[in-house]
Amino acid sequence: MDRLGPTDIRDHVGPDVEVIDVGKHPGHHPVPQEEINDLLVARARDGKRVVRLKGGDPFVFGRGGEEIAACLAAGIPVDVVPGISSAIAVPQAAGIPVTHRGVAGAVHIVNGPSEVTEATLAALRDDSVTTVILMGVGALPRIVSDALHAGVPADRPVAIVERGHHRDQRTTRSTLGTVVLDAGRAGVRNPAVIVVGDVARAGLLQPEHQLAGDTVL
Amino acid sequence: MDRLGPTDIRDHVGPDVEVIDVGKHPGHHPVPQEEINDLLVARARDGKRVVRLKGGDPFVFGRGGEEIAACLAAGIPVDVVPGISSAIAVPQAAGIPVTHRGVAGAVHIVNGPSEVTEATLAALRDDSVTTVILMGVGALPRIVSDALHAGVPADRPVAIVERGHHRDQRTTRSTLGTVVLDAGRAGVRNPAVIVVGDVARAGLLQPEHQLAGDTVL
Repeated sequence: MDRLGPTDIRDHVGPDVEVIDVGKHPGHHPVPQEEINDLLVARARDGKRVVRLKGGDPFVFGRGGEEIAACLAAGIPVDVVPGISSAIAVPQAAGIPVTHRGVAGAVHIVNGPSEVTEATLAALRDDSVTTVILMGVGALPRIVSDALHAGVPADRPVAIVERGHHRDQRTTRSTLGTVVLDAGRAGVRNPAVIVVGDVARAGLLQPEHQLAGDTVL
Repeated sequence: MDRLGPTDIRDHVGPDVEVIDVGKHPGHHPVPQEEINDLLVARARDGKRVVRLKGGDPFVFGRGGEEIAACLAAGIPVDVVPGISSAIAVPQAAGIPVTHRGVAGAVHIVNGPSEVTEATLAALRDDSVTTVILMGVGALPRIVSDALHAGVPADRPVAIVERGHHRDQRTTRSTLGTVVLDAGRAGVRNPAVIVVGDVARAGLLQPEHQLAGDTVL
């Protein structure tokens, strides 16, 4: 399924519903966050019931907390419906369980543009931890360089899943030592989820074949 | 909503559908995992379309990977529908965003019964990381002791959310130094999700009031 735009959403709501597209894409935020917060508050104050529809989960790098805080500060009650986070669902679509008994007993989720912290290096170093990097294609060379310098083994498996759950989903398998080269060769682009850890190696769930296609494993 | 039992599921499926309750609860697994795997394969080989319904997300400590591997090894194709992981959705129900701009830039998810690894200690030590502990009530004293010995500050905020998204949801707020005592006093029990980090302090989203009730913040 492709991202729902305002035109598609119109098919699911009545003609009296106002639809405002604040259309965030990686690196392209036409409406600043402050303005989104203000819009939510303004429409609620006009007596409207406001639905803020987001991709993924609003609390996993979704800035949902900020929007809620803005509403609560204005005295507007908020109800939150959890979402499916790409950090878990996109690896899953490529046949990668973020935890797997005997392989990965913890998951560390970070966003690519942030600095690589000591905690993230510790996660990357531990082969029983799955590290999931969101919005990480641009930052990949820096993250890999920091990890290798911090002593993370170059043969640590890496998988990059582009356009998860879309028809043209693609998984690039590599290792920490070669992933920058491999990603460049494959022309990997956002939106993509990067998985580092033993669960990312090919054939974890199906020893003999590469897992194929969409969500059908 | 309470957990769907086989009786409730009957309301949603036709009379010709076989419903098998493998009813896992914390510390109570009436049907061993191996047997669940075998059941899935056996029924599929009988030509049935098998739905394995789980709480939470099948790939976040849900042993979904093992069930898929068993099916694929038997030549049975598998389709996976992502779920809402309690690691993210239960803190959310208590008004705790696992990431929050300027407060928490990474999430580390572990299960309580596992040993506390160096990577988990590094996550606990970093005040920009949210650590989420699933199935952790029994292991809490050991985890807290390990964390304090490893130099994690005693004033690190901790929240324990019991029975997330149920009508009798309850949140106990504390700090690493006093949480064992506070949890004992409150009679905290599984199912519960434990959140350690600055996002767990009361009033993050709403400075003046304790957040109240269920998912309505």
